Amino acid sequence: MTTGFTASGLVTLTTDFGLQDPFVGLLKVQVWSRCPTARIVDLTHALPPYRPEVAAFWLERARRWCPPGTVHVAVVDPGVGTARRLLAAVADGQVFLAPDNGLLAPILEKTGGTVHAIAFDRLGAAGLDAPSATFHGRDVLAPLAAEIVAGRRSPEELGPRVADWVPSSLPPAVARADGVDGSVLLLDRYGNAFTNVAAEQLARVASPVVRVGPRQLPVVRTYGDAPAGTAVALVNSFGMLELAVVAGDAGGELDLRPGTPVRVRPGAPAT
Amino acid sequence: MTTGFTASGLVTLTTDFGLQDPFVGLLKVQVWSRCPTARIVDLTHALPPYRPEVAAFWLERARRWCPPGTVHVAVVDPGVGTARRLLAAVADGQVFLAPDNGLLAPILEKTGGTVHAIAFDRLGAAGLDAPSATFHGRDVLAPLAAEIVAGRRSPEELGPRVADWVPSSLPPAVARADGVDGSVLLLDRYGNAFTNVAAEQLARVASPVVRVGPRQLPVVRTYGDAPAGTAVALVNSFGMLELAVVAGDAGGELDLRPGTPVRVRPGAPAT
Amino acid sequence: MTTGFTASGLVTLTTDFGLQDPFVGLLKVQVWSRCPTARIVDLTHALPPYRPEVAAFWLERARRWCPPGTVHVAVVDPGVGTARRLLAAVADGQVFLAPDNGLLAPILEKTGGTVHAIAFDRLGAAGLDAPSATFHGRDVLAPLAAEIVAGRRSPEELGPRVADWVPSSLPPAVARADGVDGSVLLLDRYGNAFTNVAAEQLARVASPVVRVGPRQLPVVRTYGDAPAGTAVALVNSFGMLELAVVAGDAGGELDLRPGTPVRVRPGAPAT
Repeated sequence: MTTGFTASGLVTLTTDFGLQDPFVGLLKVQVWSRCPTARIVDLTHALPPYRPEVAAFWLERARRWCPPGTVHVAVVDPGVGTARRLLAAVADGQVFLAPDNGLLAPILEKTGGTVHAIAFDRLGAAGLDAPSATFHGRDVLAPLAAEIVAGRRSPEELGPRVADWVPSSLPPAVARADGVDGSVLLLDRYGNAFTNVAAEQLARVASPVVRVGPRQLPVVRTYGDAPAGTAVALVNSFGMLELAVVAGDAGGELDLRPGTPVRVRPGAPAT
Repeated sequence: MTTGFTASGLVTLTTDFGLQDPFVGLLKVQVWSRCPTARIVDLTHALPPYRPEVAAFWLERARRWCPPGTVHVAVVDPGVGTARRLLAAVADGQVFLAPDNGLLAPILEKTGGTVHAIAFDRLGAAGLDAPSATFHGRDVLAPLAAEIVAGRRSPEELGPRVADWVPSSLPPAVARADGVDGSVLLLDRYGNAFTNVAAEQLARVASPVVRVGPRQLPVVRTYGDAPAGTAVALVNSFGMLELAVVAGDAGGELDLRPGTPVRVRPGAPAT
Repeated sequence: MTTGFTASGLVTLTTDFGLQDPFVGLLKVQVWSRCPTARIVDLTHALPPYRPEVAAFWLERARRWCPPGTVHVAVVDPGVGTARRLLAAVADGQVFLAPDNGLLAPILEKTGGTVHAIAFDRLGAAGLDAPSATFHGRDVLAPLAAEIVAGRRSPEELGPRVADWVPSSLPPAVARADGVDGSVLLLDRYGNAFTNVAAEQLARVASPVVRVGPRQLPVVRTYGDAPAGTAVALVNSFGMLELAVVAGDAGGELDLRPGTPVRVRPGAPAT
């Protein structure tokens, strides 16, 4: 049985491991030891350790630029070593390996992909040693990614198909009669705030303005469309409503943090 | 028309994207999706977002170790989405793709390279979709780098040749009758201060000493030539005058920051 | 003369360079300029600059996952440019290039590997220019790693064999009649504290508990075996005794830092 997945050679890594310790490097050693021709992309390793929903957001967005045949390994895994399952999913021609904690839920909800629970008693057959209790990324997921990229294993072989994967804990933005109620999802490197309001939700509001705390922000097309220091909202390059301060730090200047409420409302008509 | 550029397969990335978010990873996905054999080097992604002159300095220095045929992508781009141009330059057998904000100026001034302004209306012909308004690194420069590395496009095809690129905003060190007046350009990971005084400028001052604030620093050959805790100056491995505290943090201990004045003067004769 | 080392194509990098500046990128440029087929793994670049024993620990552990034929480059090198030697060692079928400051000592002590001191007067024969005084990673070690990976040089050719390499400054954990006395070696990205007590030392203590400051920690199998907020000890995925706070920051909450004493003792019998 196969879903017809054909590996492209591209492997992405998305974790909360940081780059301080050699944890990420050892994932790559595991992949290249088994598949020397793989191309390995670090998506990010700076994810917050106890918020799989942020990893889920980035992976669901980033996959859209990845070619069919990409294998994604994602590890934000506070439950490592407990009874939580590891999943292997096939969705839109790509493979996703991750713990079952909601990390894959947005992708599965959007694509209807198929999901298998990795059976630890089959790892020996795949040439894997008994894994440690605390580092399944290195001991299970990276080696399996390599086996899949090398074409020696298919995701379906890794364990039984399951349908009861853990749903997303990402709070959705809610459409209302007079607009959209959302919240800040994350702050990026520039201090810009990604919200959970998608471009399509924004598009349904006429001449929208964005309210956050006591402020009302105009919606612009790009950062350079307003003078330095101006607080603005825009649809960012990942298709989400973003709050920014031009040439500044929106997070600090607007006192934004994950969960800060963001409301989209129709702009006041010209008087 | 071609300048005879032949790609070596090496692509370097120099940005202010940080490594917190998947921005850099998506540049690599774009390159490898189009040219799986490319070798991608991260030069740095920690550049200050609003100082293209620091990116310009590092790229001008780092290119000296890169082989002919290297393609460099450099993105510090506060003007993304506005009318600022994107440039494709060929200089000393290497290609440079960057926004037109002074980032390439030091290289062009030293090499007399040729410069083309990337024509957005030709992107479709190169197989590129309409770019987002805020992430031209991912949507334009990385795909074009891949096309060039793969040998499917030459830099000259990307748009009209231009000569009016934005000059450097890097302040130069100034030769004076009695020495050189420069300033601190950046602080590195160790707290060492790179100045804008080049080794050749230092060499023209007899028995030089370096004055910074109330301090006078001896010029040594390497860090180990003075006891721990000593403030010294030396020509660093990038050919620039550097201020350091042996086994210490010069930035903190000497209160240095970008722009701090640095004067090179002849040493006092022995009395 | 050869030890029969055959390169696998894998090169690892372990440094204190950080990722702020293009230092690491230039190591990769040096490797790929000379050996385009190398696969380069960053183990870590965030090592503390003046503690080669931490680099030594990580490299000794990480090598265990690397295949035979791996070439490791490790640079924590406060003595760069002074009379300190650079070493090329062959141990367990892998090559290690590093300054002679204790960085390779744990590996050499465990494996009895052979060690050569790199002769700077032979570098020209290997096609290397005169190195700078302050960046031997870029100018010597990375190019030599590439020469070795490409099969053009063997480690034994690089200089005379030596036996007087600098021993480790890593403090050992000491077995006592009633347990083991060790200390904290490093804090990882999660705030977990790696100690210098190995799993084998822990295994010799009956029903062990771990004492640190006024606290007594139970030994568990994995983080999820205790409620959030609990301070625990466990054998981590690198075979070392680790102190952790479940879903918390052990370093901060237990006031741990490198050198903090850690005692393993038999647990009190049930009463």
